[in-house]
Amino acid sequence: MNHTILLKNRPQGTPQLSDFEFQKDDKALNIAEGELLLEAKYISVDPYLRGRMSDAKSYVPPFNLNEPIASGVVAQVKASKNKNFSEGDFVSGLLAWKTEQISNGEGLNKVSPDLAPLSAYLGVLGMTGLTAFLGLHEIGKPKAGETLLVSGAAGAVGSVVGQIGKILGLRVVGIAGTDEKVNLLKKDFGFDDVINYNTTTDMLQAIKTTCPDGVDVYFDNVGGAISDAALFSINRFARIIICGAISVYNKTETPTGVAVQPFLVKNSALMQGFIVSNYADKFPEAMKQLSEWLAKGQLKYTETIVDGFENTPQAFIDLFSGKNKGKMIVKI
Amino acid sequence: MNHTILLKNRPQGTPQLSDFEFQKDDKALNIAEGELLLEAKYISVDPYLRGRMSDAKSYVPPFNLNEPIASGVVAQVKASKNKNFSEGDFVSGLLAWKTEQISNGEGLNKVSPDLAPLSAYLGVLGMTGLTAFLGLHEIGKPKAGETLLVSGAAGAVGSVVGQIGKILGLRVVGIAGTDEKVNLLKKDFGFDDVINYNTTTDMLQAIKTTCPDGVDVYFDNVGGAISDAALFSINRFARIIICGAISVYNKTETPTGVAVQPFLVKNSALMQGFIVSNYADKFPEAMKQLSEWLAKGQLKYTETIVDGFENTPQAFIDLFSGKNKGKMIVKI
Repeated sequence: MNHTILLKNRPQGTPQLSDFEFQKDDKALNIAEGELLLEAKYISVDPYLRGRMSDAKSYVPPFNLNEPIASGVVAQVKASKNKNFSEGDFVSGLLAWKTEQISNGEGLNKVSPDLAPLSAYLGVLGMTGLTAFLGLHEIGKPKAGETLLVSGAAGAVGSVVGQIGKILGLRVVGIAGTDEKVNLLKKDFGFDDVINYNTTTDMLQAIKTTCPDGVDVYFDNVGGAISDAALFSINRFARIIICGAISVYNKTETPTGVAVQPFLVKNSALMQGFIVSNYADKFPEAMKQLSEWLAKGQLKYTETIVDGFENTPQAFIDLFSGKNKGKMIVKI
Repeated sequence: MNHTILLKNRPQGTPQLSDFEFQKDDKALNIAEGELLLEAKYISVDPYLRGRMSDAKSYVPPFNLNEPIASGVVAQVKASKNKNFSEGDFVSGLLAWKTEQISNGEGLNKVSPDLAPLSAYLGVLGMTGLTAFLGLHEIGKPKAGETLLVSGAAGAVGSVVGQIGKILGLRVVGIAGTDEKVNLLKKDFGFDDVINYNTTTDMLQAIKTTCPDGVDVYFDNVGGAISDAALFSINRFARIIICGAISVYNKTETPTGVAVQPFLVKNSALMQGFIVSNYADKFPEAMKQLSEWLAKGQLKYTETIVDGFENTPQAFIDLFSGKNKGKMIVKI
C-alpha cells in the first residue's frame, strides 16, 4: 500500500491538519529503464515549506493544491534500472511525501549509514548544516573575537550556527524559548550565553547585557520582535543574515516592526536574505568541513524524531510552536 | 568681525532656529607656522547633520553643545604659513560654521574655480557626487537593463544617482514630492519615469506600474512609508542602498514600518547602510569619473543657493520640508 500526503488547502495563518489530505492506493509501481523505486525512510519538515504552501510569489514555486508536498527525504532503493544506483542504496534528495515513489535519479545523492546516522543527512549533513555553514560564512563573514547572536538558537539551523561560531572563536549568544533549550545550548553546544525570550521581559536590555561588546553578526531565524530588539545592539559594519522569519510565516497581514533603515545607515550595517540553494557551488566544500567537524566530535546535533508517516503534518505544524529541539524529522 | 554658529540645544523632533546660536567677536586671528587663515565662501547643509545634533551613538561623534557646527565648506585662503597652500587658493573640507577660521591644512583639498563653479565642490564634485557614485556602485552593483528606483530623487544625491543610472543603461524611476520636481527630473535629468508621492494615493501600485519588471536596485534616501512600498516590488537578488532616512530623522520615537526581513529572505535581497567616508580609498577614481561626465555634459546638477551666512540654520531646517531642489548650499 502506498501512502501520499497532499496539500488540501492553502493554510490561512497557522497550518491545520485539515490543510492536508492522506491518500492511499495499492497500484504496483513499475520502473522503466533509468528509473528507481524508492521507499521513504526519513522525511524532513522545515519552516520554509510554509512559504510553498501559499501561492505568493517566492523563490521557489508554490505547491499545487491536491498534489503531494515535497521536502528533503532519505529513502532506500528497493529496485533500480539506473546504473548509478543499486538495490539497497540509501539516497537523499527533494522527494514527495509518499511512502513509495519512482525517481529517475536526478538530484539524488547517495548517503552512507556507516558515516553518520541516516537522519543526519537531513540535518547537520544536509540542507540544515549547509544553511548554517554557508549563511554564516557567505553573509556573516565571522571573525574570531567578534560577537555572534543567533535567534531560533535551539532550532535545526541555529544550533549548528552557534557551534560553528564557537569553533571559529566568536562569542556566541543564543535566543531560545524554554529553559530546557537554554540549558541544552549552554551545556551541550557550548553557547557562551542564552536568552529565554519567553521569560525575558526586556529583550533589548537582555541582548545588551549578554552582548556587552555589541553584536557583529546576527543570524536571524525568527524575525519579529526578537529581531527588532537585536537592532539596538548591532555594531558598526554588522552583518545580519536573514535566514528565516518563522515568527511571521503564519501572519495573514503584512508584518510590521521597528524600521531597520536608520540602524543600517547609522552602523554601515548589512542585512541580506539567505537561501541555501543560491550557493550550490559551495556545497561540496561546506559538506567536507561539516563532515570533518562531525567526525572529530566538534559538531553535535539534536533531532526531534517523530515516528510514523501519518504524523508528518502534525510534526510540520509543531515547528511553529517550537515543539522541536534541533532538526524535526519524521521516521517512516 | 568673525561670525560663528553654535549648537545651542539638541533638537527635539524638527530642528528650530532656537536650537542654534550666533556669536561674533572681533579678535584678530593670527596664524602660526604651518597654519592658514580661511574665509568661508560656501557652506553645505546636509540631512545627515541632524544625526550629529543628537547625542545618540552614531558613525560620527555628535556635535558638542555650545560649540560650532561643522560641515562641508569651500573657503578661500586669506593668509598662509603652510607651504601647501597660497593666499588666494580655494579649498574644500570639513570646516566649522564660521566666516573665518584657522586650519593646519589637514583634510583640505584645493579646488579650482576654472574647472567647475566653486559650489559644485560641495555637490556633484563633493560628498554628494561621491555618495551617489560610490553608493550606487559599491552596494547597488548596477547592470545595464536593470531597473533602478531612487527616492529623494530631486535631492542632491538622488538626482546624481538617477543620471548615473541612465549613463550606465538602466531604467531609472524616481520618487519626488512636487510636480515641478517631477518635470525637472524627467525633462532635464532624463529619468524614465517619476512618481509624485504627495499626489499618489497608492505608492505600492505606483511603483508596480512605473517599474513593470520590478526593482533591481533601490537607492533609498528617505525611508518611511515610501521605502515600505518599494519592498513589494523588489526582484530576486535586489540590492537596496540605505543612504539616508530623512523621513524619520526628526522622529522622537523609534520609527516603525513594514518588516523588511520576509521580503529580503524571499528575494535573496540585500539591504546595506551606506556612509561615504567608509570608501575614502575609492574617492580619486570616483572623482575622476564624475569630472569626466560633468565635462562631457552627461551629468547635470541643480543647486538651491541661499544667500547669507545668517541664513544657514534656516537652510538646514528647510531640507526637512523638501524646500531644496538638488544640493542646498549657503553662499557667504
